[in-house]
Order: sequence, then C-alpha cells, then structure tokens
Amino acid sequence: MARLLLNCDMGESFGNWRIADEAPAMALVDQANLACGFHAGDFSVMAQSVRLAVEHRVSIGAHPGYPDLQGFGRRAMAMRADEVTDLLLYQIGALDAFCRANGTQVDYVKPHGALYHAIYQQAEMLDAALRACRLYREGLPLMTLAVADRAPVLAAAEAAGVPVLFEAFADRAYLADGQLSPRSRADAVHKDPERIVSQALAIARGEAFDDIDGQPMRLAADTLCVHGDNPQSRAVLARLRAALEAQ
Amino acid sequence: MARLLLNCDMGESFGNWRIADEAPAMALVDQANLACGFHAGDFSVMAQSVRLAVEHRVSIGAHPGYPDLQGFGRRAMAMRADEVTDLLLYQIGALDAFCRANGTQVDYVKPHGALYHAIYQQAEMLDAALRACRLYREGLPLMTLAVADRAPVLAAAEAAGVPVLFEAFADRAYLADGQLSPRSRADAVHKDPERIVSQALAIARGEAFDDIDGQPMRLAADTLCVHGDNPQSRAVLARLRAALEAQ
Amino acid sequence: MARLLLNCDMGESFGNWRIADEAPAMALVDQANLACGFHAGDFSVMAQSVRLAVEHRVSIGAHPGYPDLQGFGRRAMAMRADEVTDLLLYQIGALDAFCRANGTQVDYVKPHGALYHAIYQQAEMLDAALRACRLYREGLPLMTLAVADRAPVLAAAEAAGVPVLFEAFADRAYLADGQLSPRSRADAVHKDPERIVSQALAIARGEAFDDIDGQPMRLAADTLCVHGDNPQSRAVLARLRAALEAQ
Amino acid sequence: MARLLLNCDMGESFGNWRIADEAPAMALVDQANLACGFHAGDFSVMAQSVRLAVEHRVSIGAHPGYPDLQGFGRRAMAMRADEVTDLLLYQIGALDAFCRANGTQVDYVKPHGALYHAIYQQAEMLDAALRACRLYREGLPLMTLAVADRAPVLAAAEAAGVPVLFEAFADRAYLADGQLSPRSRADAVHKDPERIVSQALAIARGEAFDDIDGQPMRLAADTLCVHGDNPQSRAVLARLRAALEAQ
Repeated sequence: MARLLLNCDMGESFGNWRIADEAPAMALVDQANLACGFHAGDFSVMAQSVRLAVEHRVSIGAHPGYPDLQGFGRRAMAMRADEVTDLLLYQIGALDAFCRANGTQVDYVKPHGALYHAIYQQAEMLDAALRACRLYREGLPLMTLAVADRAPVLAAAEAAGVPVLFEAFADRAYLADGQLSPRSRADAVHKDPERIVSQALAIARGEAFDDIDGQPMRLAADTLCVHGDNPQSRAVLARLRAALEAQ
Repeated sequence: MARLLLNCDMGESFGNWRIADEAPAMALVDQANLACGFHAGDFSVMAQSVRLAVEHRVSIGAHPGYPDLQGFGRRAMAMRADEVTDLLLYQIGALDAFCRANGTQVDYVKPHGALYHAIYQQAEMLDAALRACRLYREGLPLMTLAVADRAPVLAAAEAAGVPVLFEAFADRAYLADGQLSPRSRADAVHKDPERIVSQALAIARGEAFDDIDGQPMRLAADTLCVHGDNPQSRAVLARLRAALEAQ
Repeated sequence: MARLLLNCDMGESFGNWRIADEAPAMALVDQANLACGFHAGDFSVMAQSVRLAVEHRVSIGAHPGYPDLQGFGRRAMAMRADEVTDLLLYQIGALDAFCRANGTQVDYVKPHGALYHAIYQQAEMLDAALRACRLYREGLPLMTLAVADRAPVLAAAEAAGVPVLFEAFADRAYLADGQLSPRSRADAVHKDPERIVSQALAIARGEAFDDIDGQPMRLAADTLCVHGDNPQSRAVLARLRAALEAQ
Repeated sequence: MARLLLNCDMGESFGNWRIADEAPAMALVDQANLACGFHAGDFSVMAQSVRLAVEHRVSIGAHPGYPDLQGFGRRAMAMRADEVTDLLLYQIGALDAFCRANGTQVDYVKPHGALYHAIYQQAEMLDAALRACRLYREGLPLMTLAVADRAPVLAAAEAAGVPVLFEAFADRAYLADGQLSPRSRADAVHKDPERIVSQALAIARGEAFDDIDGQPMRLAADTLCVHGDNPQSRAVLARLRAALEAQ
C-alpha cells in the first residue's frame, strides 16, 4: 500500500515579491503544487520552481486559481462552469510548458483557494474541474478534499474518466462532514506538533482521530497538505515525513 | 513546392470586448495565429478560437506577446532574454492546452507586436525565441520576418535545432534590407488590391517587386500575413487565395 | 421640480478595444458614468472621455467596478466591506484627476455591474459605498437603484451624511419589490420604444406602470439609465429626451 | 535654509505579498513616496500606508510607475508622452483619494523605476511629467534626480509652472554628469555607513564629495533618498537623520 504522500503549495512568489527560499521544503515533500500565474507565480517564478522540483525529484502538480492576483485567489468569484474548465486548461498548459522544458510533465491538478473550495462544495464546479483534467490528458488526476463521504466525488470522477487524489490536513480541525473548520474558529488550526503528527498517523493508518467536537472522524486520503515556508513549519514537516516513513 | 501560405492574427478579443466574427476569415486562411492572453485573448476566447480553427482545418500557431494588455503588446519592453524564453513558453503551453483538448497541437510560434520586432532586430531575442520553441517541442517552428539576408536567422535556427517559417507581407512596403517600412511613412501600407495581389504573386514566384524606393526587392517566404477583420480585407484575402491557388 | 435626468455608462473602451464613437450619445445625456480602469476604461480612455463630457457640459460620475477586466466587473466577488470602500476611493480619485485636469470634478458615484447589485442587496456593501463617497468629498452623492421601499437606503445615507441619487430603468421590467427582473427571463428587457418612453414618463410623473406581472408599480427616481452605443438605442434616447423635456 | 529632507519609497506591498513593517522607518523619514497600484501597492495597501504616514506626520508623495506589476516598474516601456501624462494623473488621483480620506493631500510626485530614469534622460518625458503635476494641482512639485547641470530641468519646470524637488543619493556613486552609476559596476552602491553619512553631509552643506572616479562632485539637492526596509538600513537612516539634524 502506498505511503501517505506529502504535498505543499509552492511557487507563490510574484515578480519582485519573493517567498522565502523553497529548497529546504522541496527536499522534504513528495508533491509540489505550483502556482500558475493567476493568483501567484509568474513565468519566471514557474521556470525556477519547476527546475527546483525536478532537481529534488518531486512530483509537480498544477495549482491553478481564480484570476485575482491581489486577492491571492482567495475571494470567491462567480464563474460559469465552462469558464472554470477553460481557466484550468490555460493554467495547466502554461505550467506544463515548463515541465516539458525540463523533461517532465504535470502529474496532477490541485485547484487553489476559493476555487478549491468551490470544487468540493458545488457538483457543477467539480465536473468543470474533472473535465479540464480529462481534456488536458487522459489519466491526469484531480486533487480534492478528502471529505467523509467520498461516494459523490468518486461517482463524478468515474463518469468523467479522471483519477482522484484525496487530500487531508494534519494541522486543521475537521467538521463532522469532513469539511475543514472555518478559520474563524479559534481552534481551527492545530499548533501542537504532537497533535499534528498524531492526526497524520491516524489518517495514514485509517484510524479515527478527534474532529473539532471531539467526535471520532476517519478520513481515507492519498496525500497530506503540509507547509514549509518557515523553520517551525519545516520542523513539523520533517517530523511528519519521518513518522510516515516509519510506518 | 509548397504553395505560399496565408496566415492571419486571430483570437484578439478579450472579455467583453469582441473583435468581429472570425469565421469568414477562418474559411480563407491556412494558419491562424492565436493570441495567448498577454496582449489579447483570454482563456474563453482561446477555447473558442481553437475550436473554430479546428472546424476549418486551419493550422494553429501561438501568437504570444509582451505582458501589456492595455498597449496590445505594441510597446517595446526591456526584458532579459531568459524572461522572453519563459514568457513564450508560458503562452505556448497555455494555448496548446486548448489544442490538446481539441485533439490537435500548436503548429508554430509567431511572436506578436513589439516582441516580433525585437526578434528580428536583436540576435539575443531571436535566440531566446528559438530556445522557447526548442524547449517546448522538438521540431516546433518559429515564424519570423522574411528579411533580405536570411543567413543570420538560418544560422541561429540551425544552431538551436529549430525550423523557421519566413513571413512576408503583401500589403506593406519594404525597406531595402527587407525590413518593413515604418507606419509613420505615408506609403508604408498598400491600399490598392491590385498592388497587394501583385506583390503576393511576386513573392510566391520568387520574382522581384518594388521596395519603398522603387528598387527591386526579392523575398523568399513561406507564408504571407493577411487580415480578415472587415469585408474589404476579406475581399482582398479571397483574391489573394484564388491567385495563389491558381499558381 | 427637477426633470428626470438621463445617465449613460460610457468610457468603456480599453486599450486597443474601442467602443463605438461616444460623441452622439454624449450630446443627448445629462450624466456620463465613466469607467475607472478596473472593469473597463484605462488612463488614456478616461482622459478622452472626460474631455468629451466637458465639451458637452455633461455631468461626470465615477463608475467604479470590481478588479475584473476579463469579466467586465459582472462577476460577483467576495470582498470585505473595507476593501470595497478602498476599491471605490481608488477609482473615484483616479477619475477625478482627469476631471481636475479639465477644470471640473466627479459629481457622483455609480458603482458598476456586480458591485452595483451588491450595494442594493447587502446593507454592509451599501454602507461601504456611502463611506467611500463621504470620505472622498462632503456632499458627493451615491447613485443606486430606485427600489420600491427607499426607506432603508435613505436611513443609511442620512446616517452616513451622503446624498443619494435614485436610478430607474425605462427599458427593464421590474419585480414587485422594485428590483430588476433577471435577464434570464425572456421579458426582462423592453424592446418596444413606445413602452420604454411610456415607462419613462410614468416614472417622471410619479405615476404607476406595469411591473413584470402586470401589477402597478411606482418608483420615485432622480435619473434614468439609458444606452447610446448604437443607432437604435440612440433613436430611443433622443425620443426619451424629447419626451422628458416636453413635461 | 531648509534642512536636507529624507525620502523613502514605501507602500510597496501588493495583496498577499507583504513588505516588512514600515512603521519604524516611517518614524525616521520626512517624506514617504507611496506606490500607486501600477508597479506595486494596491488600494488596501495604499489606505494603510497613507494612514501610517499621517500618524507620523510624514509628507506623502505619489510614487507612480509603469503598468508592469511583474517587472516592478523597472522595465523601460515605450510610451508616448501623452500616455505618460495620463498614466501619472491616474495614479496621483488614486493616491490623493486616500489622502483626502485622511484630511491631507499628495504633496509631491516622484515617478518610480524606469519611468524615473526616463524623466531625467528624455526632455519629452520630463515635460510629460511636469504637465501631469500642473494639471493635477497648481504648485504640486515634481521630484527628480539632482543632476550636475540643473539648468535644463529648471527651465522646463519654469515653463510648465511646476516646482521641482531635486533628489540626491547618499549611498550611490555618481558619474561625472551627476547621473547614478549603473548598478552593474561593483562600486555603484556604497556599503560603508561612514561614507554614506559623509556623502549626505557634503550634499547638505553644498560641499564636494568624490564621484565614482574620485573627482570632486557637487550636487544641490532638496531631499535624500533613503531605505528603511531592514535593521541595517534603518541604522544608517537613524545616523543620517541625526547627522542632518545636527547641522
């Protein structure tokens, strides 16, 4: 059985605005979700991030977002489903150009920010995203939230002929339906490294962990979203990696 | 020997701003140079233009420009060569996504506007463009201006391992070195359809035609840049097509 | 008593994309709502449109929109109220610079597109817009939809110390609450010039006209939104102007 | 006689990309040059920066740039003079809106980046900038480089009816004509705090200091460009302030 993977949002610099050096985190993750120029990233940043991922033999995912640079793709935008499909195709292709230039390819698609949320909340948007994956390349997987009831997502994905990668969070508290607790709740984000590692191991083993109300929650996931943009988050990331590899 | 082809800049709408219906011109050209979202075009426009080109069995070229929507890519911008390579890769990949979704691919790359001019005027920029073509796909041709002395371009292209498509203009007056007369000169653009057709046929046959000073000019070209956005230009285009096919 | 005014969205070109000549309509309206660069318009377009309005002695309103050029400001975007205030301030000031350069000033603010709708649908967004007007200049009015029950808007405006201009539509069918019928309904837009003029006169006289269900509707309004971008709409506009002046 | 002032480029965050806390530097400078949304800054950033400047009683200058967010306004762009005037008017007005909302006004205009260089290198661009200042408000000064021969700038400014603020640099080596040494030269930027303070005092006193070739250079200036985005630069800034106040 495959080890639970570690994925990380990267390539989020833009022009003169530089996010901290990504090399240390790149050395610790399995999958790098690279911004594609709409909410973050630009053609120079993408070229550099793809090279860095290739050097570290990290799998590259497209991380497309709404066309909202100032809002970092976090503001919901009212877009039609066909617009979302084309929005995704554009960004997947743009990133894949840099992958091709480096002898590799986009391995999966993980929509970003408000678009990520729209996709697990609205069936029409899920279909739009699946359609973009299928149109781009047969077998290109969509990464989406590992909710409690995976059946509707799996049915839509099967109908579209698109593989799905379910993503879970070790540092976020969950609601009973497997959606993430809104950040407005004080206890929405776990700070304690012990708790983060323990939630990750539970997810990796298919065991129960506490949801935000202390009720048992089980999530089947393929990959865990991690952060690595500062020394603290990288320390947690290194512990997560060691714990998962020791499984 | 291959017939001189007809290429046309298309897909230049953006959002709510629509360029006139492109279907009539698409029926008359061989190659559609499609804007890629930086100087014109957006993901929805690109999706529609690619579908239209595929319906008409027209070859699709990427028409990438500087990141200057308001200036329509016509303002020179001081960019480093590596930035130009990445600028091109991004836009080629973005357009190719829509080609893939329609079972085809980008057949060539024709840079737009001020970037087009930079490429035949600066060896460093020519190399940057050739490099983008080569990195994207082996055999992907660059379309550039058919100047009088093709040797430097051919040498650079051979070194890069990239095919070149030389483009000529039937409706523009030429300077003695094969560069286009600046539009600031009153006689820079031919209005008379007879003269346009006659210049086209001379280029197709490898015969001489008058440059802007009335001196004989010969240009070896693969493709002719045409316009088709209004009834007058389409009438000329139809005549050009008929004349070339009658060769 | 003041005549019902005629206002028109103008200055909606962008860069190379030109909306038809605005001079004929400018000669017929009282108020020009000028786009401010976010959903349409750019600094060159704004400079030209302000000059044209000044030549025709037409009152100039800021027509600010969401930062969504491709979507023409018609896509709802999730923005905080403080962001909306700052979004409006920025655009009002930008347009006012061209007014100052021509010896005049922005006379009112009419938010555009999805932002226009947000303002009469969400009290928090109304407050954000009122706040922008008040912060920019004492006495700067906000133009908003003339709904059936004006009391909540008038209360908020009074609390903010901002005058309100109520806007009605002669060519749109109304729902019972004074909101516009959604364009998805086939009968949402009146095509018949007679009906448009008759609805305009009813609004001007404070008389009842038929809402979309044939029930009597009365709307108290200060200004009527008109269109003038083609010969047909300008013919209707000329009739409206004549009919209102004959009151 | 007025003390040599200290000005600093600020408000250069954009959306999610935050430049370090500006409060410590704001406490040390006289003039804050605030980005206006084209090369950096956005409406939320501008609102915050203006408030911070007002709290510290720092004079606010508009710092407008080319429309090139990714290039941070540092790439030369081929713009017509009338476009530059309108580009500046737009950004001055946008920033002034936040000044008005805080009971103050834009005190001067300092173009940014490649536009700053264009203005002291091309008479036409200087005129375009002077024209924007004059059109926006009578008496609004333009800040430009304190070159060795100020006569041409002063003549143009007098003809336009616009005051000029000459800006010098304490940490940059000068060429003989008073232009800045290109950064490509290893010795273009002074690192030694002693040398920086000593060059500042020479400028303040109208005394000679060494140009890049060791020749004596005198510059008459009104204001000194300083940096304050990290502890080292702020330490130099504090020393500069103390040294100038001790004059």
